[in-house]
Amino acid sequence: MKVLAIYCHPEPRSFTRAVLDVAMHAVKDAGHGFDCIDLYADRFDPVAGWHDFEAPSDPDYFHYQTEQRLAHEGGTFAPVLRDYQRRVAEADLLVPIFPLWWGGPPAMLKGWFDRVMAYGFAYVDGARFESGLFAGKRALVAVTTGGTQARFSDDGTYGSIDKVLWPLLHCQLRYLGYAVAEPFVAYAAPRVSQEERSDLLNSWARRLTALLESDATP
Amino acid sequence: MKVLAIYCHPEPRSFTRAVLDVAMHAVKDAGHGFDCIDLYADRFDPVAGWHDFEAPSDPDYFHYQTEQRLAHEGGTFAPVLRDYQRRVAEADLLVPIFPLWWGGPPAMLKGWFDRVMAYGFAYVDGARFESGLFAGKRALVAVTTGGTQARFSDDGTYGSIDKVLWPLLHCQLRYLGYAVAEPFVAYAAPRVSQEERSDLLNSWARRLTALLESDATP
Repeated sequence: MKVLAIYCHPEPRSFTRAVLDVAMHAVKDAGHGFDCIDLYADRFDPVAGWHDFEAPSDPDYFHYQTEQRLAHEGGTFAPVLRDYQRRVAEADLLVPIFPLWWGGPPAMLKGWFDRVMAYGFAYVDGARFESGLFAGKRALVAVTTGGTQARFSDDGTYGSIDKVLWPLLHCQLRYLGYAVAEPFVAYAAPRVSQEERSDLLNSWARRLTALLESDATP
Repeated sequence: MKVLAIYCHPEPRSFTRAVLDVAMHAVKDAGHGFDCIDLYADRFDPVAGWHDFEAPSDPDYFHYQTEQRLAHEGGTFAPVLRDYQRRVAEADLLVPIFPLWWGGPPAMLKGWFDRVMAYGFAYVDGARFESGLFAGKRALVAVTTGGTQARFSDDGTYGSIDKVLWPLLHCQLRYLGYAVAEPFVAYAAPRVSQEERSDLLNSWARRLTALLESDATP
């Protein structure tokens, strides 16, 4: 198995970073391959634009999907996008790791989907969900929140975590064909004790290891 | 009434841009004030980071909410953020206008929320939803989609549009205190006839005008 983490947090000593480090050790200890895209370390620019393409087909009118299709056919995506796409294609398990900001991934991670998961490379007309181009691959999202678990319950003020994460889990990952495991959520990470943080990280390592050992679709 | 549009599309001749132009004329014709933040024209950087702050309090550890709180207290947000915050504070009606990419706003608009709707300025502990700092203001989202309305129905492949937009409508706008009107959605904008586009734009103008004429909370 090859695991690709997509990590997005501005602080190298954050709890979210510890989630990444634990994942790396768990994957390597289990004898699998581990790759990581560290978006802040890469200074990734999440803004979609002409810089996505080495040879725009119609520089007078920006039609994103058309340019993406042609860039995929011609191999003319910007080098940074081609590199990320190669690593996505090679990975069996995608693991986005991020803090929940305003009910979703930070803009940097959203823009990584906008730019990297491009038409032609990641999806085409008529191929989505079960027939998506990435069918056979799996995805496991790890997210840290400021709010407590109660706030993300069905009756909670924010709505259930499944509802909050729907655009990512369903409209992005499942749409692409990924079999999406139940997300790992570290609730109220900034407010819990050091011992509780250790427990969270241990349970995260177990979740990931169990998924790696399981051949079944999650 | 003062209306502030937050517009995010890379192509100046797009249908989404026509939605903005129609909004501008409708608001001005009704005798209200109109302001627009054009994120692509502004080359807005959506990545949260040290550049948000003129005088970071702890340059060795990036704690976003703490830095935001102190920047709000000290008036030390980066000038671009202070300018946007002033315009948000002045506006009675916020109108985000964008294409739906991967089930949500483009990264540029997500990052505008991450950076501009900052702790201290836009929210504080214990003030959310009905007691949010922007209670009394209204918000009306206008979104263009590639997918048809059927795909965004309760039984549709993407789930209802309310479910897809939940993080924006609920976790962001309602959380801040905005009274959120039913979103205007131009479904399948790239696939419909010129006549249908005209109809969509006319119905958008009527929606916006009716909201401006109504004093009731939407």
